[in-house]
Amino acid sequence: MTRSITILGATGSIGASTLDLIGRSPEQWRVEALTANSSAKELAVLAREFGAKLAVVADEAHLPALRQALAGSDIEAAGGPAALVEAAARPVDITVAAIVGCAGLAPVMAAVKRGGTIALANKEALVSAGNVLTTAVSKHGAALLPTDSEHNAIFQCLAANSLDDVAKITLTASGGPFRTWTSQAIAKATPEQAVAHPNWSMGAKISVDSATLMNKGLELIEAHHLFPIGLDKFDIVVHPQSVIHSMVEFRDRSTLAQLGPSDMRVPIASCLAWPQRMDTPLEPLNLAKIGELTFEAPNEELFPATRICRAAIAEGGGAPAVLNAANEVAVAAFLAGQIGFTRITALVEEVLSRYGANEPGSLDDVLSLDADARQSTTEFLETPACV
Amino acid sequence: MTRSITILGATGSIGASTLDLIGRSPEQWRVEALTANSSAKELAVLAREFGAKLAVVADEAHLPALRQALAGSDIEAAGGPAALVEAAARPVDITVAAIVGCAGLAPVMAAVKRGGTIALANKEALVSAGNVLTTAVSKHGAALLPTDSEHNAIFQCLAANSLDDVAKITLTASGGPFRTWTSQAIAKATPEQAVAHPNWSMGAKISVDSATLMNKGLELIEAHHLFPIGLDKFDIVVHPQSVIHSMVEFRDRSTLAQLGPSDMRVPIASCLAWPQRMDTPLEPLNLAKIGELTFEAPNEELFPATRICRAAIAEGGGAPAVLNAANEVAVAAFLAGQIGFTRITALVEEVLSRYGANEPGSLDDVLSLDADARQSTTEFLETPACV
Repeated sequence: MTRSITILGATGSIGASTLDLIGRSPEQWRVEALTANSSAKELAVLAREFGAKLAVVADEAHLPALRQALAGSDIEAAGGPAALVEAAARPVDITVAAIVGCAGLAPVMAAVKRGGTIALANKEALVSAGNVLTTAVSKHGAALLPTDSEHNAIFQCLAANSLDDVAKITLTASGGPFRTWTSQAIAKATPEQAVAHPNWSMGAKISVDSATLMNKGLELIEAHHLFPIGLDKFDIVVHPQSVIHSMVEFRDRSTLAQLGPSDMRVPIASCLAWPQRMDTPLEPLNLAKIGELTFEAPNEELFPATRICRAAIAEGGGAPAVLNAANEVAVAAFLAGQIGFTRITALVEEVLSRYGANEPGSLDDVLSLDADARQSTTEFLETPACV
Repeated sequence: MTRSITILGATGSIGASTLDLIGRSPEQWRVEALTANSSAKELAVLAREFGAKLAVVADEAHLPALRQALAGSDIEAAGGPAALVEAAARPVDITVAAIVGCAGLAPVMAAVKRGGTIALANKEALVSAGNVLTTAVSKHGAALLPTDSEHNAIFQCLAANSLDDVAKITLTASGGPFRTWTSQAIAKATPEQAVAHPNWSMGAKISVDSATLMNKGLELIEAHHLFPIGLDKFDIVVHPQSVIHSMVEFRDRSTLAQLGPSDMRVPIASCLAWPQRMDTPLEPLNLAKIGELTFEAPNEELFPATRICRAAIAEGGGAPAVLNAANEVAVAAFLAGQIGFTRITALVEEVLSRYGANEPGSLDDVLSLDADARQSTTEFLETPACV
């Protein structure tokens, strides 16, 4: 049986992993649309290779280049935010939502509004627009399949179980590259040291989030929206080997855990084939070879991000959106050498404490809150006393 | 909603754990029948406490004592193998099949024949009568819920997944008390040393099986019948902490594992509430406190039982039934000081190699094969050259 698919963000790492998988059994897939931000040539190559019907660049300035690169093919080319939303609104069996940042919100919402099945890899959709999105998902009967390895693990562990029967959901965290460092060493950590993630190969921003453990805090916010069991039932455990990707404990004290390689193709395959399974080219798990899995409680003194994220969830309103925006600006400032490592989370906490934001009621509210919070954080950074 | 239950083997450890659980919410349960082998007084106490309609002793010699102990109550008393089968045939929502040994076969089959849901804790039903039982389960539309912690773990991990999507099922083994011993030390192991199981509190026979790893081999035979994915897809890993009770790897290289305390009330609760969940009085899992989980490949040179069991499955026919019978006789001989520890598995292998047995076609065939193999093993033991 052929399944139709649209990949929003086809030229990024999630897009590449998805295309790697469907390229292994192309006869089972029909590609409706592939989109990119600005990489017109790369997008055109993929659109030709995978026989897409439509290719869209979000940045309309790159549409001429896309048209040129697709010349002579039957592939439709389009550009701009409205074209992106139109692409996401086309009916397909599964939409992979892998656009990074707030630019991904409107297309995700378009897929939700047609009641689609969405493999969700866009963090902002749940962190900044959590209530707006989950309300729309319920209203339109859409299905969100979480693609993040931790949330996908939880999704798999839950399977047919009721959320009412869940006693605890535990997110595992690698602990990042500074897990064993002293507070003095962490304070002096450089961007190069922060982006050297022990288990996953990732971009600079998300690697820094992993070093601060902000990524785990953001995942906590996402999990809170995906699996609404109440904040006090979420736990985080540091597990440096990243073999267990997360766990669900039920009221009978059975815990189900999902284990696997640190390769995004595994959770993506789980979404693509859901509720069945499909092959991936990865090695089987060999626990005898791995030898040991270790666990320790997170140190929220050294790594306060998870505590800050919990507080933002508890505060509610626009706090998680503000947190996410402030963190992006702070991480960029750290990567630019403007602030030290420990200032990232301190700055986020300071912005949050001074910035009361109402619950966004719509995507437009989310976007304007996000822009406003970025602006405020930037101003904060430019105030000498704050840096 | 009240659910009706019959416990076959109510005075044993599985029976006690089951009654402990239902005693915590007695308003949710209606006890139809409780049975015991010969402990008439103890059975009568339980039947009164839990308001059973029927109490049965398998050994009819104890029926007068049971009648006397139940005098003045409305509880019906019965005795003998036919009464046991009649009790198992009564319609209930769930039957807990916890009679030890071949005596449990006929009542399990009676519950199967009425298409019941059966929490199965009787090893022989699958080890010795595997094909007979699973054929009857299919024919009568019964449901087997495995109660053993390993098989229950697999059952939970599989959930709604198809067996076709399973790449590997891994049974975890504690490794037993002699895991780190030398072959010389193992050869001299005493019954006292063999029954000191590191994680579970169990009877002498099953503790010795744990020390030889025969318990894991027998579980492999059971798993092979419960989850027919082919012998080559089963793996065993030694995991001394016994926190992970077993795992299922799917074709996409996602592995689901079930973790929990070493307390039979957890898997029993999973069966009792299936497909929902119920509370148990156990502590939540705390991996940060446990600290580490370790894994190693089994050493089949020192502990050949799993290799022998694999061979018996591959040989098919009556080999697993012969193996089980030979092992029981050999373990009894070890506990009686008649043979050394390493002779247990050697004897089982010798009996198997000399004893060709056709596939049992019925329960009667199984029972006669079991009796015959015990007799042969005993004769083997009495032949000086063999001991």
